[in-house]
Formats: sequence, C-alpha cells, structure tokens
Amino acid sequence: MDIPRPYLIFLGDVPDALAAKTGLGVVDWRRDWCVGQWRLPGCKADARLTDMGAAEAAAKGAKTMVVGAVNAGGVLPEHWVDSILAALDAGLNVATGLHSRLSDVPAIRERAAEKGLALFDVRHSPVRFATGKGNNRTGRRLLTVGTDCSVGKKYTALALETGMRDKGFDADFKATGQTGVLISGRGVAIDAVVADFISGAVEWLTPDADPKHWDLVEGQGSLFHPSFAGVSLGLLHGAQPDAFVVCHEPTRTTMRGVKTPLPTIQQVIDLTVTCGRLTNPDIRCVGIAVNTEHLDDAAAHTVLAETAAAHGLPAVDPIRTGVGPLVDKIAADFGR
Amino acid sequence: MDIPRPYLIFLGDVPDALAAKTGLGVVDWRRDWCVGQWRLPGCKADARLTDMGAAEAAAKGAKTMVVGAVNAGGVLPEHWVDSILAALDAGLNVATGLHSRLSDVPAIRERAAEKGLALFDVRHSPVRFATGKGNNRTGRRLLTVGTDCSVGKKYTALALETGMRDKGFDADFKATGQTGVLISGRGVAIDAVVADFISGAVEWLTPDADPKHWDLVEGQGSLFHPSFAGVSLGLLHGAQPDAFVVCHEPTRTTMRGVKTPLPTIQQVIDLTVTCGRLTNPDIRCVGIAVNTEHLDDAAAHTVLAETAAAHGLPAVDPIRTGVGPLVDKIAADFGR
Repeated sequence: MDIPRPYLIFLGDVPDALAAKTGLGVVDWRRDWCVGQWRLPGCKADARLTDMGAAEAAAKGAKTMVVGAVNAGGVLPEHWVDSILAALDAGLNVATGLHSRLSDVPAIRERAAEKGLALFDVRHSPVRFATGKGNNRTGRRLLTVGTDCSVGKKYTALALETGMRDKGFDADFKATGQTGVLISGRGVAIDAVVADFISGAVEWLTPDADPKHWDLVEGQGSLFHPSFAGVSLGLLHGAQPDAFVVCHEPTRTTMRGVKTPLPTIQQVIDLTVTCGRLTNPDIRCVGIAVNTEHLDDAAAHTVLAETAAAHGLPAVDPIRTGVGPLVDKIAADFGR
Repeated sequence: MDIPRPYLIFLGDVPDALAAKTGLGVVDWRRDWCVGQWRLPGCKADARLTDMGAAEAAAKGAKTMVVGAVNAGGVLPEHWVDSILAALDAGLNVATGLHSRLSDVPAIRERAAEKGLALFDVRHSPVRFATGKGNNRTGRRLLTVGTDCSVGKKYTALALETGMRDKGFDADFKATGQTGVLISGRGVAIDAVVADFISGAVEWLTPDADPKHWDLVEGQGSLFHPSFAGVSLGLLHGAQPDAFVVCHEPTRTTMRGVKTPLPTIQQVIDLTVTCGRLTNPDIRCVGIAVNTEHLDDAAAHTVLAETAAAHGLPAVDPIRTGVGPLVDKIAADFGR
C-alpha cells in the first residue's frame, strides 16, 4: 500500500480539533505533502492550509483526498459521502483511517471502480500476514513504548527519523497506526490486524535490512494498559527491537479510558526488557521521551532533569527540546 | 452463539487423525452430544461413532453438522461443499472452525437461507466487542496458561470443569478456541478477534457472576511464544484470573512452529503473576498440569513428583492422574 501524494486533507464538519486529529497529524509532519484542506460549513478544525474543494485540489496536483476526521464511533457520516464522490469525480483517490470501509458504501465503491481510482482503508491492510516466527533479522530496530496510550509514541518515532537522518543515519519511520500510515504513505494499522497475526504483521513491516539501517517503529498502547497490552506485546515481539524509548506523560494519574493507575517509567523499562528478550536478547532502553505539553517551561525542564537522573538515561521532550540526546545515545551505543 | 445439539461429526476424507483434531476433540469431551460420524471414501480418521450420512443423522435427531476436520491451510475443500449442501438439505445447521467462512461460498449461503438454517463459523464471532476495561468483576476465574501452544490448556480446563462440578463447585468451561467453542456450544475463538478487542472479548466471555461461581477459561498460546504472546497477554488481562494453572509438555525443547527455546515453568509463573496483577492483584498459581503422553508411567510419575516438589504446588496429568489435587488446592485456597 503506497498512497499517492500530494494530499487534499478533508476535515468535514467536525466539532473540534480532536476529531480532526488524523488530518492535523498528517499536516504537522507532512505539510509539504498537502495542497489544501476541504472544510464543510460548520467545521471547527483548521489545519491552516488553503481552503479548497476537490476540483481545485486536483488542478493543483493532488492525487489523494485524505479523510482526516472522525465522528463519534469512527463511522463515515452519510453527509460526507457526497464529498467523497466529488473527490472521485475530480480524479482523486480517497484514503481514510475510519473503522468502517469506504468500499462498504456501494455508491463509493462503484464510483471508484468506474473512475479507476483507489480506496485506501488504512485500518484494513490488504496483506495476508503470516504468524510471527521470532527469527533474528538483520538491520537495527527501535521501538517507542509507553506508560500509556496517546503519550507521544508516534511523534517520538517521527522526530527520531528526522533527527537521525540529520546526523547521517539511514533511518525510516515505520507506521503501526492509521495516522502514522497516512503520514508515511505506508505501514500497517496493527490494532486492526487479527490477533493471531500481530507479531507476524510487524515482522512483515520491519524485514531484514542493511546492518546499519534503522527501522523506527511506532509503538501502540502500553504493556500496562488493560485494553491494549496484547497489541503492545505482539508489537514488541514482532519488532524485536535493539533499542527502545519509553514515552511518558507526567501529569496523568490513570491510564487513558480506564481506571488503572499509571505504571512507573522503571516498571515499563523492566517489563519491556523481560518480554523483549524473547526475540532480542540484547534489547536495551536508550532514553525517555516526556510529553511536557501540560507543564510550563521551568517545570518541564525540572521533570526532564529529574527523569534523566533517576534512570541514568537521556530524557527529552521531542517537541520542546528535540531528540538530540537520544540520537547521541544511539550513536554512542550502536555506532553510526 | 449457541450451537444446536446433538451433532453429526463430519470428518471428510482427511489423511490422518491430526487433521480431524477438532472433531475428535468434540467426541472426546462430548460423546453424548454426537449421534454419528460422516466419513468420505479415503478418510483415515475415526471417532468411533456410528458411520452415517446427513439424512440418517437428522432422522436420529441431529441438529447440527460439525465440520470437524481441516485440510492444509484451513480452507474448505471444494469437494466437501456437496456434503455441506446435503446436510442443509437434510435440515441440519452447519458449524466449522475453519479460517474460511461457510457463508463465503455462495451455494452454501443461498441454501442455508432458503432452508432457514444457521451457519456457524466459530472462528468468526458475530459479536461486536468493546475494548477491555480492566474493571474488577464479581465471581471467580481460573485461566490455564502454558509454557507453549498445544500443551493441554483446553483439556486441563475441561477436566477441571468435570472435577470441580463433581466436588460441588459451580464451574463453567469458557472456550477461547474453535474446538473449545464446539465442545461447549459457545465461546469466542480469541485468536480470530481483531487485536484491539482481545481483552474486551474475554471480559465479554467471563462477565460478573455469583461470588462462588468459577469460570474456567481456556488459555491460548504462551506469554513466551513469539507468534502468539499478544493473544496470551490480552487473554490474561481480560480474564483477570484469581487462579491459574501452568500447562507443560516436558519432552519439548523448542516452542511449537518456531526455534525459540521453551521457558521454564517458573518463568511462566513469574511473568503471569507480574502481568496478571494489572487486572487482578491477588492472582496466584494453584498448580501445574503436565502432559506426560510421551512418557511411560514410571517416568510420568517421576516428572510429576519432581515438578510438584520444585514449585511447592500440586502437579497432575489431567488425562493420566486426573485433576483431584488441583481441585483440592482450589478448595483450600478459595473455599467451596
């Protein structure tokens, strides 16, 4: 699955920015892939791109309209179907990260077939995966893991891609969630894979590579999250990472969506090493990425300094401070 | 999903008993649910039931034909379709544990609709699960876990159901694999659930219950199996077991289907407790079930005695010795 670019970002008429998270995430990381945004009347999200419709986007070179918005339940609202048909009529492929499939809407399926255009339901991989094997693969892998969901695992992996490439590393972000797939144009939404094939899908995503190549694998969930730990463990075994970064949000007290208390960073390091050794006996933690968005600058720097000292590892906020110390640690531990 | 009984067991023309594992498993545990077996010319498996076709089975009261056989790849061989149509024509529902869906074969789908009969693809639950919540539920739960796949987790849970009921416990086997679903007439094939919903599906399967009720949950895979550990962890968190039994096959050196060495029983106990505490802080191991089928009687008893002594826990072979000591330990630890 390679999604043709550039994109037109469709934001629909979402009631707030959170509902446009996917689209805004794509724009944050790949603004140069986006020719414009299409907003319907009442839309409360703004990706600060030029507003335009499908025909104008196509005239400006757009190849795919990304439905970068969700409504409650992750289903496609009926009143967005006309916009999708208009995109197809303008010659654009259409991609979404919704649970429901574009191809399940007969009008969309038929129009796409008629126009010879592709529908990308990025939560549903067309690949038939094998079960994971656990065999050692060549090349280097780094996985971002978390004390919780939605703490910055994708952003950390993307920031590492930029930071490592800037220092001359051969490094690729490997997407395991729908927004990540749209940001990188490929990948697997691992939480939508059938349970038997979690680790196998990640092995497929991060195959044998040049010994100096790094795959920077986007983590999902947390080994300590009662909803999603199975996904996290299959992802850990499949990625067989040489290195991992723990991502953490210091102001949370319970895990997202449940009443379970947050684990400590040290608990996450320990369990990740214990479990990760199954497929990579040399797995090690190379640093901590703290999401300090809810702290002021002084508090953020205090937390980072204390976190680094407590664990003897670099601690950064990828947004506030950049990932330089993580890249330096990777270079020191593994060479260039 | 409640599969109507009794069953006609369809064994097709499988080349050996292993390919009829599902059907033979159903007969082992539920012989009184089975009115007969239907074998095609060349069939090398034998469940030692009366041979009969669909019409005779229907006349003897059968309600569902269970396709208790697989061919390579888990797909439905074309030359079995006629037998399935004949079963529908005789008024039987049809159930399978194959990966492919009966309803994907147009002739089968149309015939079932025409006759008003049900098709049970037990690997594919029709339930839309929620994500797991990790909230504490009432009632007691026991999970069978393993040092590997296919070491006797289903048999142990089924033997415990019989053994505990004999001692007056209110206990129900809860199936998490296709054979188990056919044996109990309900359940969820957890390895076929979308990854995001593993623990949620198990929470659905083992809901709040009477404080003295025991759900005996069939385990899957192993926390140490690189193909399936994600399933095992989601199952552990969703089941939030009070008690678990470790199942082990002492003659294996590597895990099934991969090159990974087998973990020790102690490693499985330790990691199960570490991870299981997330949703049940009081989780404990109540014994070990050793599959001694490849040992002679003397060697089996030596292994059981040594295993019990090494861990300070009862060690049984559910087939060779019965599960009495496990039931006694459960009664001692949790009361009747």
